[in-house]
Amino acid sequence: MPFYQYFNGDILPIDESIFKTNDLGLLRGYGLFDYFRTYNGVPFRWDDYWRRFENSARLLKLTLPISQQETEKVLADLHAMSGEQEVAFRFVLTGGYAPDSVNVVQPNLLIRTEPLPQDNPAGRLKGIKVLPYEYVRDLPEIKSTNYVHMVLMADEMRRQQAADLLFHKDGEVSELTRSNIFIFRGNKLITSDRNVLNGITRKVILELAQAHFQIEVRPVLYKEVVTADEVFTTSTTKWVMPVVQIGDLPIQNGLAGTSTLFLRELFENLIADWGK
Amino acid sequence: MPFYQYFNGDILPIDESIFKTNDLGLLRGYGLFDYFRTYNGVPFRWDDYWRRFENSARLLKLTLPISQQETEKVLADLHAMSGEQEVAFRFVLTGGYAPDSVNVVQPNLLIRTEPLPQDNPAGRLKGIKVLPYEYVRDLPEIKSTNYVHMVLMADEMRRQQAADLLFHKDGEVSELTRSNIFIFRGNKLITSDRNVLNGITRKVILELAQAHFQIEVRPVLYKEVVTADEVFTTSTTKWVMPVVQIGDLPIQNGLAGTSTLFLRELFENLIADWGK
Repeated sequence: MPFYQYFNGDILPIDESIFKTNDLGLLRGYGLFDYFRTYNGVPFRWDDYWRRFENSARLLKLTLPISQQETEKVLADLHAMSGEQEVAFRFVLTGGYAPDSVNVVQPNLLIRTEPLPQDNPAGRLKGIKVLPYEYVRDLPEIKSTNYVHMVLMADEMRRQQAADLLFHKDGEVSELTRSNIFIFRGNKLITSDRNVLNGITRKVILELAQAHFQIEVRPVLYKEVVTADEVFTTSTTKWVMPVVQIGDLPIQNGLAGTSTLFLRELFENLIADWGK
Repeated sequence: MPFYQYFNGDILPIDESIFKTNDLGLLRGYGLFDYFRTYNGVPFRWDDYWRRFENSARLLKLTLPISQQETEKVLADLHAMSGEQEVAFRFVLTGGYAPDSVNVVQPNLLIRTEPLPQDNPAGRLKGIKVLPYEYVRDLPEIKSTNYVHMVLMADEMRRQQAADLLFHKDGEVSELTRSNIFIFRGNKLITSDRNVLNGITRKVILELAQAHFQIEVRPVLYKEVVTADEVFTTSTTKWVMPVVQIGDLPIQNGLAGTSTLFLRELFENLIADWGK
């Protein structure tokens, strides 16, 4: 798997040291990213991911150095060079090199080709435990590189056999560290509309669910989550993953719910046929 | 000025590209830093800076790869190679290279030699304007690399001819983007004790002020700041810098205060003799 990466116009081996040390992403945490993958060799919902990436860049006032069309050409090259049927792409845009370590001069754009994620396939079947964690992401609409709490809590999650954190504050839930949260209450499918990243998988699930459930997109209370009939989380790597325990509290009987499994099947059918 | 940098045991030219792209500082904002300088060729309050760096590392659960004594040797080498009488050093410790982009394996330690800061010498004389900004730094005791709001607001500060942001929330002030805040009310010198970085210059000023003023280290209200007799900020690069305007509101007559100037003189005397 000879993976490569794109950096400001050049294609380089994935292991190459390419960042100078006065990059604002490194020194000041001034960076954003995005992440998506192919199914059947075709990037999934590419237009949606690109639009989100553009939106994050706009909100951090960073100018994208290349167009969507030019980027497509880069992705095709990186994909071909990998020799793999399926790959994931990680875009990273930082504030670039700053002589004064404060002001943006010219952003740095990195596109990494990465092997396909294997994010907890067991969790997708059986459901996962998450730990409640009092926190709201700063500037949540931006897919920024700030994941300090996730990395900081990695050991504690392992210790408690939890797969993720559930962010909540003032009685309201927002999201997991890298994924959105949904609950079922009867036939109602509910997901939060504030302090969340606009997940592309979240968007796809809302589209797929429309014909089958009553949908509410609105603030979600913590107590609604722990007493929900079903809870699940969505992301590019998690797809539709049941959440069956929050801290010490099982959700209902602690098993993946039937409506969740139904949505998971709809999603899996969609990606099975993607690009065909 | 042939400046160099230390990276995980090697000494390299300052401009060299040395970071691989799966560093957790870059991808996840998982990093911390520290920054100090020499006076008369001698690092200022080195023990204090080292202890703070150690404390930040401990709070982010990162193991420092070298001891204080080994680091002193590196600093001496970098200083000698620079050919300069005075230099600044920037330490950066990140979560290191992560195959899974989540878990820390081995931190990366970078020490950059940098030219002496020229942080607004005019402001030190005349005082600066700051913009009130509703925000509290996440994990404030850690000197993390998260300075997103500072970089994001850089243009707006220029537009409003302001030198910095004053962070406040729920009626309480904490700090500026990279410096602590003090106020005088009569003979009382007051500075905040929570949601702040433990500044080394702040510590030095508290030591110097002890013989001359009544000191209160406690939560500081926003309304106390705007109605204070004098306001100033302290940092490694700002020393003692009067704050004479907050948004549209001048502090008293909008001129640097006499007690502030007195403390600035005490500090300047201290650094003039440093190491002698």
